[in-house]
This record gives sequence, structure tokens and C-alpha cells, in this order.
Amino acid sequence: MEHHTVFDWSRRQRTGVPEVVFAEGKANTQLLDILDAHEQRREPLLFTRLTAEQMDALSARDLQIEPQARTATYRLQDVARAAPQIAVVAAGTSDLPVALESQVTARFFGLNATLHADVGVAGLWRLERILPELVSAELIIAVAGMEGALFSVLAGLVPSAVIAVPTSVGYGVAEAGKTALTSALASCAPGLVVVNIDNGFGAAAAARKLLKHRFETATADANR
Amino acid sequence: MEHHTVFDWSRRQRTGVPEVVFAEGKANTQLLDILDAHEQRREPLLFTRLTAEQMDALSARDLQIEPQARTATYRLQDVARAAPQIAVVAAGTSDLPVALESQVTARFFGLNATLHADVGVAGLWRLERILPELVSAELIIAVAGMEGALFSVLAGLVPSAVIAVPTSVGYGVAEAGKTALTSALASCAPGLVVVNIDNGFGAAAAARKLLKHRFETATADANR
Amino acid sequence: MEHHTVFDWSRRQRTGVPEVVFAEGKANTQLLDILDAHEQRREPLLFTRLTAEQMDALSARDLQIEPQARTATYRLQDVARAAPQIAVVAAGTSDLPVALESQVTARFFGLNATLHADVGVAGLWRLERILPELVSAELIIAVAGMEGALFSVLAGLVPSAVIAVPTSVGYGVAEAGKTALTSALASCAPGLVVVNIDNGFGAAAAARKLLKHRFETATADANR
Amino acid sequence: MEHHTVFDWSRRQRTGVPEVVFAEGKANTQLLDILDAHEQRREPLLFTRLTAEQMDALSARDLQIEPQARTATYRLQDVARAAPQIAVVAAGTSDLPVALESQVTARFFGLNATLHADVGVAGLWRLERILPELVSAELIIAVAGMEGALFSVLAGLVPSAVIAVPTSVGYGVAEAGKTALTSALASCAPGLVVVNIDNGFGAAAAARKLLKHRFETATADANR
Amino acid sequence: MEHHTVFDWSRRQRTGVPEVVFAEGKANTQLLDILDAHEQRREPLLFTRLTAEQMDALSARDLQIEPQARTATYRLQDVARAAPQIAVVAAGTSDLPVALESQVTARFFGLNATLHADVGVAGLWRLERILPELVSAELIIAVAGMEGALFSVLAGLVPSAVIAVPTSVGYGVAEAGKTALTSALASCAPGLVVVNIDNGFGAAAAARKLLKHRFETATADANR
Amino acid sequence: MEHHTVFDWSRRQRTGVPEVVFAEGKANTQLLDILDAHEQRREPLLFTRLTAEQMDALSARDLQIEPQARTATYRLQDVARAAPQIAVVAAGTSDLPVALESQVTARFFGLNATLHADVGVAGLWRLERILPELVSAELIIAVAGMEGALFSVLAGLVPSAVIAVPTSVGYGVAEAGKTALTSALASCAPGLVVVNIDNGFGAAAAARKLLKHRFETATADANR
Amino acid sequence: MEHHTVFDWSRRQRTGVPEVVFAEGKANTQLLDILDAHEQRREPLLFTRLTAEQMDALSARDLQIEPQARTATYRLQDVARAAPQIAVVAAGTSDLPVALESQVTARFFGLNATLHADVGVAGLWRLERILPELVSAELIIAVAGMEGALFSVLAGLVPSAVIAVPTSVGYGVAEAGKTALTSALASCAPGLVVVNIDNGFGAAAAARKLLKHRFETATADANR
Amino acid sequence: MEHHTVFDWSRRQRTGVPEVVFAEGKANTQLLDILDAHEQRREPLLFTRLTAEQMDALSARDLQIEPQARTATYRLQDVARAAPQIAVVAAGTSDLPVALESQVTARFFGLNATLHADVGVAGLWRLERILPELVSAELIIAVAGMEGALFSVLAGLVPSAVIAVPTSVGYGVAEAGKTALTSALASCAPGLVVVNIDNGFGAAAAARKLLKHRFETATADANR
Repeated sequence: MEHHTVFDWSRRQRTGVPEVVFAEGKANTQLLDILDAHEQRREPLLFTRLTAEQMDALSARDLQIEPQARTATYRLQDVARAAPQIAVVAAGTSDLPVALESQVTARFFGLNATLHADVGVAGLWRLERILPELVSAELIIAVAGMEGALFSVLAGLVPSAVIAVPTSVGYGVAEAGKTALTSALASCAPGLVVVNIDNGFGAAAAARKLLKHRFETATADANR
Repeated sequence: MEHHTVFDWSRRQRTGVPEVVFAEGKANTQLLDILDAHEQRREPLLFTRLTAEQMDALSARDLQIEPQARTATYRLQDVARAAPQIAVVAAGTSDLPVALESQVTARFFGLNATLHADVGVAGLWRLERILPELVSAELIIAVAGMEGALFSVLAGLVPSAVIAVPTSVGYGVAEAGKTALTSALASCAPGLVVVNIDNGFGAAAAARKLLKHRFETATADANR
Repeated sequence: MEHHTVFDWSRRQRTGVPEVVFAEGKANTQLLDILDAHEQRREPLLFTRLTAEQMDALSARDLQIEPQARTATYRLQDVARAAPQIAVVAAGTSDLPVALESQVTARFFGLNATLHADVGVAGLWRLERILPELVSAELIIAVAGMEGALFSVLAGLVPSAVIAVPTSVGYGVAEAGKTALTSALASCAPGLVVVNIDNGFGAAAAARKLLKHRFETATADANR
Repeated sequence: MEHHTVFDWSRRQRTGVPEVVFAEGKANTQLLDILDAHEQRREPLLFTRLTAEQMDALSARDLQIEPQARTATYRLQDVARAAPQIAVVAAGTSDLPVALESQVTARFFGLNATLHADVGVAGLWRLERILPELVSAELIIAVAGMEGALFSVLAGLVPSAVIAVPTSVGYGVAEAGKTALTSALASCAPGLVVVNIDNGFGAAAAARKLLKHRFETATADANR
Repeated sequence: MEHHTVFDWSRRQRTGVPEVVFAEGKANTQLLDILDAHEQRREPLLFTRLTAEQMDALSARDLQIEPQARTATYRLQDVARAAPQIAVVAAGTSDLPVALESQVTARFFGLNATLHADVGVAGLWRLERILPELVSAELIIAVAGMEGALFSVLAGLVPSAVIAVPTSVGYGVAEAGKTALTSALASCAPGLVVVNIDNGFGAAAAARKLLKHRFETATADANR
Repeated sequence: MEHHTVFDWSRRQRTGVPEVVFAEGKANTQLLDILDAHEQRREPLLFTRLTAEQMDALSARDLQIEPQARTATYRLQDVARAAPQIAVVAAGTSDLPVALESQVTARFFGLNATLHADVGVAGLWRLERILPELVSAELIIAVAGMEGALFSVLAGLVPSAVIAVPTSVGYGVAEAGKTALTSALASCAPGLVVVNIDNGFGAAAAARKLLKHRFETATADANR
Repeated sequence: MEHHTVFDWSRRQRTGVPEVVFAEGKANTQLLDILDAHEQRREPLLFTRLTAEQMDALSARDLQIEPQARTATYRLQDVARAAPQIAVVAAGTSDLPVALESQVTARFFGLNATLHADVGVAGLWRLERILPELVSAELIIAVAGMEGALFSVLAGLVPSAVIAVPTSVGYGVAEAGKTALTSALASCAPGLVVVNIDNGFGAAAAARKLLKHRFETATADANR
Repeated sequence: MEHHTVFDWSRRQRTGVPEVVFAEGKANTQLLDILDAHEQRREPLLFTRLTAEQMDALSARDLQIEPQARTATYRLQDVARAAPQIAVVAAGTSDLPVALESQVTARFFGLNATLHADVGVAGLWRLERILPELVSAELIIAVAGMEGALFSVLAGLVPSAVIAVPTSVGYGVAEAGKTALTSALASCAPGLVVVNIDNGFGAAAAARKLLKHRFETATADANR
């Protein structure tokens, strides 16, 4: 029984953002076919949620692989110095893979994204140390599991909006990220919006769309 | 047994946004005390989630009351013509109270917010009719209950980011908004971020923070 | 301790549909015994939910095996040209195994079933392309995971009824298919009915029963 | 703050079925406005989920009101004798309101729908008594709360498909219909499809679409 | 760090029933130590929930091992002919392991327990065939997964009480036995009592206690 | 739209137990009709779950009404001295209504049922005081809400089986009886079986069926 | 049907703490009987969770009633100056009733309990202002609803243990306190322990037991 | 992409308790780096939740490894004879790993912690045997899975506070510790506080903070 998948080459023109492929559940041959098609048109491409085994299968190709982030990028561009500055903040070391997925995706989309690790609320002084940098960011992506208290605390401290990425880190009542998720949603701190559990990619994609005026301005300036 | 509440007058300077009071569960005397304090300093004030009985208690005062939105505003300002344009889209007539809370709050925060009602996905032609207007908005707030399919469809059609506000509209498995909420979070459409069920206020507050650059630019221009 | 299982040979006469065996959790010897019994009576037989290991055990036998659908058919018949035409629509590539199980089962039951893959709502233009074909189908089986927005959109666009098959595709709040399931059930689009998560077989079996008049008519015509 | 609702008069032509309005949560003035608009065009109209108070408000108008079904119909037509025959089966007396909503809606849509009450599985002999009638129906709508065992039993006994309508009847673990719902979905009886809890309307609307060929045939016959 | 476990040799005298050990999660050495202690005192012993690996470790010892039931018995006694007669009824072949655990335990406790497999409600005629035997049983243990409709149907047909053992058989909404469990509890059929999911042992232990009068009578008769 | 309900007069002969009507959700006229029909045949009748308003409507009739148990009995018989002795144990005063429903039903079914109130595990000495009486009962019905620890403790202390009736007493995580229910089911104390939350009637009905041999023996003795 | 409740006068000696009665669900006559019994023996008594209607019924008696805390105390004693000092911290004004219940109970049990209101994490400066006082407390009771971020933040800042009391304040995903509860439990901040939702009494009772050494020391000192 | 983790050497001074590292999810190299850093400063260190594979990687180092507790300690100190005495009580043998984690952590924090295993409520006599020892403990940590009845029973019997540690032991409705957790929270026994499922470490850490006065007194005495 056969069926066909059609590549959507007009997408980049339409949306302004290059293609990202969610690798989980895809066969190696599928991934390689997708890569071949992009190489032929020299279209940039990002794979997310790669397994160790999939990264092996892609290792011989001309890709920039980040094992901890579980990503591989084809034709990664340097981010423009004038690009918008965002901050990715991770509560604990176990939240790093999701935070790195967010950082890699944001850079692939042309954003300057710096990563701050180990900024849990159980030790507020660590948060204080990086507060000046956070205050000057145009947008903040906060990545936290367990009880997700970081989301409320951050949103109460910074003037910019905060995108919360709950992670499946934790055990018992943490329930694979549900407690962090509902904490983010139930928070009364204004300016906090939320994406799915472990969806580091989604936060970066939303950041790109939320800051699209910055890219239009750039184009507009160039057009003058 | 006594205890004291301290008003936070420096808040407006710090955050740039005026005070909003969540009225649910507060006594009439509490609401009137808060109003008195703001009137003395002539600080703008917005009450949300007012009950019919609370609106009665406030009706004699100099407030702009919107019964369906369950809001009352003190010192409502006209929105500047150059203010950012956002669109609030409601899936059904039952979603209107939440959508109106979003619209009232957005205007209180200085945003141009237009409201489009009855834009369910079961009749896509209604969505098509308003698509040009949605495409030109700087941000979209989508308000939907039941199965929340509107969120994914909208986010796939417009270039700007979409803030999803799930509502508690529906019965049976709709479970007071949980299905609409999880639909929004589980969607793979990029640029979709989510706030709590029925949180029309939260979506508008996030919109204000996400568009803060537009206010800074305005100030910057004025400073030149 | 012994116990006996009795084959139900009169079932086909009684219900008009041949035997389908749910293989998950059955031992290889059980599967082979069932196959032997059917071969002796030359009764058609369909295995669903086969594991890779079970497919190996059956590979030497005279069966038509579809690895991605996880099915094996004994005495698969060609579908009559005049048989009812149904469409199986899959939202994403990860939904394909369930959609293929539906297609294989529908054909085993004598229905003309075509499969349309990658018809997600985040790109409505893909849906538009196949709409004419969907409009002419007698029944539609829609297969989708994640937020399941496809169900509402489809049911709003086509004149025939839609059987929704939620899949366990997704992560985080998608909760192994529960969000897609409740989305399908909470939808207000008329003509939408639902089966269990990943139950591609069940959708095809329901389609066969819902279209039984088409088979009776055929028999009636032949009897004239 | 104003907004407009646009009536969708072309709907009946497009879908072949007249307008049904879900009354829950709507104001009396809204219901009367909708009725006025339909009376002006003499378009048939059905209200479902009316409260006692809403039925009072509509009682002076020319409507056929069914208090137990919580429905009111404008321009109810007689069902054609040749119309398809379906059976609505209710497990207990508490399931009657939902079953009646299904029956009223089915008749409004032009189907011959008979209702069988008190057919619980704890007394299978009651089911046996009506079995001949059920076997000859073109489709069965089964309405049951509590543990919903009726769904599996019926689907195992009749040759036609069964649409299960779980009801919120029951207490404790019955959890407002969730147990009946999951029972229907988890059943292995083939030919069982499911709609939302208490959605008597939805089952009838699906029945109408599933039997659309019967109406097309009728038209085709008339055209000869 | 040390700690001590004390065997409870007086238990058998106190409760009249021999020791049963739940093997899941215990180390092989723990199981062998327990067996040694019982062999020294020649006390009967039953292990339940043995893994394949644990059964291997016990295979050299003088035990009666039932692989499908995952049990091993030391000093299994013949059941007295006059012992109470109970029936264990399993809905599907996947429910057999739990039903067998129930049967083995019941016999270990001195009850005559016969097992009837494949008695699902989707084919009521299979139930009819064994009904005479069920009607004469002193107690019935019903074992079913998925939607658990068997529990209500059985309890409506037989004069004796029914102990429902929901099993974790099924997928999707079956949710590892929860749907079968809530179906059993929500049923309105009188005389239905319930134990934990997959707790075949618990049903047999309850049966033993519920029929204790039969053993006392026996003793009383012997004492005359 | 009409439908008919058929009384099941042969039930008492078939099952040996008189009719019990669950009153919740039934109209007063329905209750009075049922009562009339039973009075004409002088068949005993028990109403359970009566509201205060329903009890008012029945107060003029010849019934024995127990307001706290929410029951009304027609033709209540004295319990035979030789009838089986069971004990109903309630953990707290809030559990009394459910325990009383159990006691009233048990007596209606011909069982000697004594009630012990306020036997919580937080004060084990209260349990000790009544232990001798519990040990001699043929069956125990335990009624408890909140954390339901009473179930395990009782089942570990008495030789007879225990039917657990979880109640919806409690707040927060007690979740309307779910915690007490799952505590009863998860307990490892042998001889514990469970019915639905607040189902005092169900426990008594099960007790009657579980002790049916006692009634048969009585009949057998009388027949000699 | 009668049953008896036995007062447990020896309790105070045994546990060292006076009687507290949970009033919810009790009849006014029951409350007055309990009060009479205590007045006769001049035993201190605290009622918690009183409804407005119950407070009315008790208003004529010699009790100290706190309407917002929903408590009434008989024979309230002054707290000794040397008694242990604890702090009750409430996140928002809606959390006050639960916090006041905690404070009233703590004082009834002989603890010095001060209350700090409106200490949400969205404004950390309010927390900073009272930090010196919190650091010197022997134990902290933290009362918060919604996302409960206060629990983690507090436990990370103070040297003493923190008892978290989640409240049912919030809407949508806050789910009547469940999100605050799971946040408290999932927190990795050491020294955080949790009681049931809205259980202000329970936190104070635990505080009394956790600080019992302070009362023993006092007695020991007095004995010297 | 790089990021840095900063060790928090001032923590011990600030909080008085040495560093504990939650090993789950950390790489071996991370664990060894942490150990190296502590060895250089000769700071005590405790690893919890080690996998078998991680314990192998640490086995060559100078650590005290407890395989069943899954812990490894660097520079374990003897507990002072005058240190506070607490009791760790485990309900079943499967609860031992969590109970041992609690005991090891408590000793690492300077508490005298004795462990009592196999103290389930199904056999209250085992509890009676150790009651004198429990009554004299300053604090009790109770560890139980399944239905968690031990928590209520213990808290009703001892004068000191009880910290409940629910474990993920059990199957079916035990739901990985949720039933034990909600049982502990829903209990009305005063003096019961709760930590997360399987959080043996958390209970010991809370115990240390709750008993901090005992360490301060010691210091104060030494300072005289």
C-alpha cells in the first residue's frame, strides 16, 4: 500500500522561517531523504528530538550536531549582531537538554540567544546575579521542571514577557511535567505565556514570531 | 485578629502598566476601598471578574462598566491611533465574555483591539472573510472553548504569534476548558502560546508586554 | 490447569464479516494455531497489531504482511469496483500506522479505501487540494494525534459523516492520545463520531456496518 | 463594545439539514431574536438544552415544546413513511431526557425514530423482548449512564452500527458520564461509535449524515 | 545498615489460611529464604506474581509451578469433594493469567474453582452455554479488562454474588484497567463487589473469607 | 412523545429480594405511582436517596421514613431472630447517612444489622472496645471517607470478609470519596471487597447475596 | 434507628492538646450539644469551618467568633510570652481565611503566631521586607493557592522548616488547589512539608506537635 | 554550545547542612567531577538515587555505598550520642529502599535514626511491639505504599509529629504512589505532614530542619 508525502518548498517564503523536522518516530531513511531534498535546493534544515541512534546515522553528513540538545543543523548561519537578544534560563541541570533545544532553534531562526543554567528559586541569589542581563533581554524563555516556581518569580522580576517551557523533569507528583505546566498556567504574574511540556522548539518558534517586527524593521531599513 | 494590606503605588512606574484588580472573592467594601485609594491619587484602575452583585455596588461610582465582560474601569483613556493593532477572535457566542474581558483589558493597557465573534472552525468561510484583517494584526488573541480547534487553524494561517485563551465553554469531555487548553498546548502549529482557562485578562497583559517595544519606540520618537 | 477456546465458525454467516484477530499479547503458537484452523476451512483471516517478532514468526506462511500497518491477511480478496468508496485521512506521518491499519481492514471488509497522508490543519492548503475527493466519499475515517484539530475542520467541510480515530502520537499534554480523543468528542461539528485511541481497526469495522445497506443492495440487485 | 453575529442562511442548502440552536448559556432575548429571524424566512428551527426558565420565555410563541427533552421546535414537519427507521434505546429512566433529545432531533431531521426505555443489562430479558425491532432498524442510538454495559451488549446482538451516547447519570466513580464514555470507547464490540456525554443531539445529527444516501436515493427516485 | 523481618507463624492458626507471598519486587534470595523457612516447618506456601526469571530460580525446588498464572505452590493439597464450588469466568484470552492466579489461589485455599474462558459479552451465546453451571456456583469471580461489561451482565443473570476483578487488558481509554474497574463499581447490578486491578489473588482470598461458614460447618459436622 | 415503563413483578420470585427504588432524579409523581402499584399488590418496597422534598411528598403515606438515611420503607418486616448477624461500622459522624442507608437496606433484606459509629483509626481504642462484637459478625460493612484507613485496619483484625463503602466525606485531596475508594482497593489486607462511593445500598444488597446460603438453609430446614 | 457518640475526655491528658471540632456538615444541635458538654467540664473547645448560619446559631453563647477564619473558641487562653514563635505567611488576600484558621488554631494550642498577608512571589520585595522576622521564627506556615510558588521561594530563604498549606484559590488549571498542592510536593527546596488543601487547622496542629519539645522544656524548667 | 555550573561552597555555612546530590539523570563524569571538587575541599557529600551503573562507576572511590538505599557517602561522620533520636518506620519490604534512603540521609545530617521494617497495619500486633520505642522518638518518618493506612494509624498512636513518605509500591489503583499520598494528605490524624512520593531524602532533610533547635542548643551549651 503506497502513499506520498509532498515537500512544502513555498513554506519559507510564506512564513519567513526555514524548515524544522521533528525526528522522533521517523525512520533513518526518512531523515536522510529529507536531508537530500534540502541539500539539492540548499535550503537550511534543522532536526530536533534526534535519538542517539539517529544522530549516528546522520554523523557522516555535513551537519552541526549538538548531542545534548538532540539537534542537527544543515547550513547553520551566523546570527546577525543586530538580531534581537533573548535569554534562555534553565532551572536545573536536568532541564538543560530542553533549554539547549530552545537555544539552538532560536539561533537557527536568527535570534541572539544566551543560555543561563542552574537558576533555581531555591537559591534566589543565583537569579540575582544574572538579573541585569535578563532585564535587558527582549524576551525570556524559562525552562523548568518539578514545581516550576521559576516561572512566577522571573515574570515578577523582568519587564519583558516570559515564555514558560515546563519540562518532564521530576518524579512522583511532578508527573512528567504536569505540575510545572499547571504552575506556569495558574501563575498570576502578568506577561507569562506557556507552551507544551519539553517543547523547547515551540518556545523558540513563538519567540521568532513574536519578534517578527524586528526582522521587518531590518528589512524596512535595508529598503530605504 | 488584624493584618494590613499595603498598596503598591510604585508599580505603575516600575512596570509601565496601571493596576488591575481581580474582583472574584473580594468583599464590596474591599473593592470600594481600593477605588477610593485610586481616586485620591487619580490612578487608573480596572476591575475584572465582577459579579452582578459587585457591579451593582459599584454602579453609583464614576466607572465605565461592561456587564458582559464583567469589568469596570476608572479613568479609561482613549487609545492612541498609532497604538499597536491586535485582533481578538472568539470561536462562539459563549466565548464572548472572556473575549470581551481581553478586549477591555487590552484597551486599558493602550492597545487597539478589535473583536471578531463567531469564528468557529466548523464553518471555515467565516474565518476566510476576516483573514485579511487578521493577517495585518501585530498579535492575535484567540478565545475558544470545547475542542479548541480554532487555535491550530489560526496559527497555521497568520504570520503573527497567537495567544490562545481556552474557555470553560462546553460540557462532558470538554471538562470546563481542559480539552481546549490541552488542544492549544498539543498543537504543532508554530507561534502558538497559551494562558490559563478563561484568562482573558492574562492574554491582554501578555500582549502588552510582548509589544512593549512599540511603546518604547513611541517614547523614543517623542524624545528625539 | 487446562481450559479450552472454541472457534466461532458461524460468526461470518451471522455478521457477514470475516474474522479479525487482535495479535497483541498472543503467543506465536496461538497465532499459528488460529491460522491453521482457518486454512483448513479456507476462511479469510486478518491479524492486526502484530509485533515485529510476530511478523517474523508468520513470514513463512502464505500471508500478505504489511509491516507499517502491523497486519497480515490470509486470502485477501480484490475489492469489487462497485464497492462503497471511503477515504482515510491521516494528519501526520506518525499517524500512518494507524491509518494503514484502517485501510487494510476496510479493504479486507470489501470497501474501497484510499489513503491521504499529511493533511494537517496547520497547512489548510493541503486539505483543500484533496477536498473534491473527500466530498465524494461515502464516509471518511480521519486519523490524527496531538490536538486533533483535523476532526472538526473535516467534519465542517464534507457532507458525509466522519469517524475520528485519535492516535497516541504526541508528547507532554498530548497524553498518549487523550487530547486528540477529547477534542474529537468535544467538537460541535455535526456528523462526527469517535472510536478508541489508535483503533484503526474499529473505525473500519464501524464503516463496514454503517455501509451495510450498500452490500445488501448489491445482494438484492443480484437477486432480481 | 459592540460586535455582530451573522446568520448563516445558506447552511440549509449546503448541508441539507435545518438549523439547530444549543440554548444553554444564551439569553432569552438572543433566543427570541433567532426565532424572529427564522419566522421571517419561515425556516424550520430546533432549540435544544432549554432551561425551564427559557421554555417559559418561549411558551407564548408558536413552538412545539418537549419539557423532558428540553427542546422546542418551529415548523416541525411530519416524518415521511419511507424515511429511514432508527431505534433510540435508553438504559434507565434517568437517561430519558438525553434519549428524548435524540429522538426529537432525529425526527426534526426527517428520520423515523422510535424510543425504547428501561433496557438495562441487569435485566437482559427486557432487551430480548425488543430485539426483533432492533435487528430491523437501520441504525441504533444507545443512551446509557453509569457503567454503560448496554453499549457492548447491544453492539454484539444487532447487525447495524450503534452510536453510543454516554450520559452523566450516576454518582461516585460514574463521574458525570466518564465511566460510561470510556466503557463505550474501550469496548471490543465492532460497529460501535461514540459521541460526547449527554450529546443526544450529536448522535441524531450523525445518524442523519450516516443515512444521507437514503435521502439522496429518495431525491434520485423523484427525479426519474 | 541492617534490619530484621520476623515470620508470622501464628498467622495460619489465627486466620485459618496458609501463607501467600507476593513475589514482585523481591530478590531471588528472599524467595528462597522464605521457602526454606516453610519447608523446615512443612507449612504450605504459595508464591504469586513470579517473573520468568524468578520461576527459573525456583525451578529446582519441589514446587508446583504454573507459568501462565505466574504462581508456585509448596505442598499443594487436593481440594475436598465437599468443598464449596465457585466459578472463575474470564472475558478474553488476555484475561487468562489473572483468572488462573485466582483459580490457583482458590484451590490453595481449599475451594473447588472451575475456570471458564472467553466469555465476552460481545457474544452472549457463549455465556448462555455455561449459565447453568454458573447459576449453581456458590460464588463467582469474574475477570475482565477493556470495558468490563461482563460484570454487569453476569451479576444480572446469576443468584450468587459476583467478585469483579478488572484487568489491565486493553489500550487507549482502557487505561490499564481503570475503565473496567470503574465499570464494575458504577454498575447498578446488585451483588457485585470489586477488588483491585489484576488482583486475582485478592478475589480468591475474599472468596475464602466469604465462604468461611462452609469450612466451619464442615468442622462442626466433623465434631458431632 | 410517549414511552412506557414495565414493572417487573416476577423479580422478587426470581431473585428472592424485594424491590428497591433509587429515588434521586425521579419526580414525585413517579415515586407515588411506583408506591401505588406496590400497595395494590402489597409488595414490600424501599426508596433510597430521597431528598427532603421527596420525603415531604411521601410523608402522608403509610411509610417508615428515616430522614438521616434518606430512606422510606413500605411494609417493613421484623427481622427473624435467627437471621444472619452483620455489623455496619462507620468511621465518623459524617459517614452516618451512608451507614444508615446500609443498615436500613440490610434489615429490609432480612439481615440483623447493628451499627457502630465513630470508629476512626486515629483512636484505635474505640475500635478495640467493639472488637469482640465485630469478630462474631458473619460479615462486616465498613463505611469511611477521607483516607479510608479503617478498611485495612478492620480487615486485618476480623476473621470475616469486609465490604468497604467509601464515602464522599472530606475535602481537598479526599476528592469526593476517590481517596477512600482507592485506599480500599489498594489495601493488601485479604478479604476486603469494595463497592461504589456512598453506595450503602449496594453493600447491603451484596451482603444479602453473599449470605444467601443462610436463607436457603432456613428454607431447607423448614422444608424438612 | 439509634446510635451513640462517646466523648473522649481523656484525650487532652493523653495528647496535651485541647479538643477541636470540624463543624462542616454538623447540625446546629450537634454543635450546641458538644459545647454544652465542654462547658460543664470547663474544657476549652475550638470550632473550625463554621458556616455563616452556624456562627449565627452560636452567637448567643460565650464564644470568641472570628468570622473570616470561620472559627469560634470557648475559653481562649492568652499565649505565654515564652511560647514558641511561628509565622503564618499568606500569598494573597483570598488565602486569608485559611491563614487565619491556622493562626487562630495555633494560638488556641499555645503558640505565638503572627500573620503576614499579601506576600506573593510576583512581588519579591514584599517578601524581603518581612524576611528578618521570618528568619527568626521557629517554624513557618505558608498559605498559598494558584501556582504555589511561594512555598519553594520561602523554603529556599529561611533556616527553619516550612509547612505548606495549599489553598483552593484560583480557577482553570489551579483546579481547586491541586496545582498549589503538587507544586509544594514537587519542590526540591529542603525542609518543606505539606498538608491537605485548605487545611489551615492541620498545619497548626502539626506545628504544635513539631514544637512539643518547647512545651516539655517549659514544664521541665518549671519542675526544677 | 557551552554553559557553566557554579558550586555553592557557602551553602554549608549558611544552612548548616552538607551537600546532597540527586544522581538520577546525571552522567558519570558529572558525578566524578562533583566528588573531586568536594574531595579537594574535604567537604562531606552524599549521593542519592544512584543507579547500579552509577554505583559501579563510583565503586573505586573512597565512598560508603549502600546498594539497597542507592546512596554513596563521602566523609560519613559518626552520629553524636546526644543527637536527636528519630524513628523510620517502613510498612513493607518493598518500601525498604525509600526508608533506607531516609535513614542514610538522616545519619548524614547528624540524627540518630533507627529503622523498623514490616510494620503494616494488616497486622497491628507488629506495630504494638515497637510502640514504646516509637513513643519516645522525637520525630517519626513513616514510609508506606499501596493504601498508606500506616500513616493515620501511627499519627493516632504517638505523641510526636509524623512525616509521611508515600512510596510508589503497589499496582492498579495504587497508581505509583498516588493513593498512599492522598491517603496521607486526607487523613484527619493531627500532626501528620507529607513529602513527595519516594522522597526519603526530603523527609530526612525536613526532619533535620524541624529539629534544628537541638543542634543550636548543643552549640549554645558548648558556647557557655
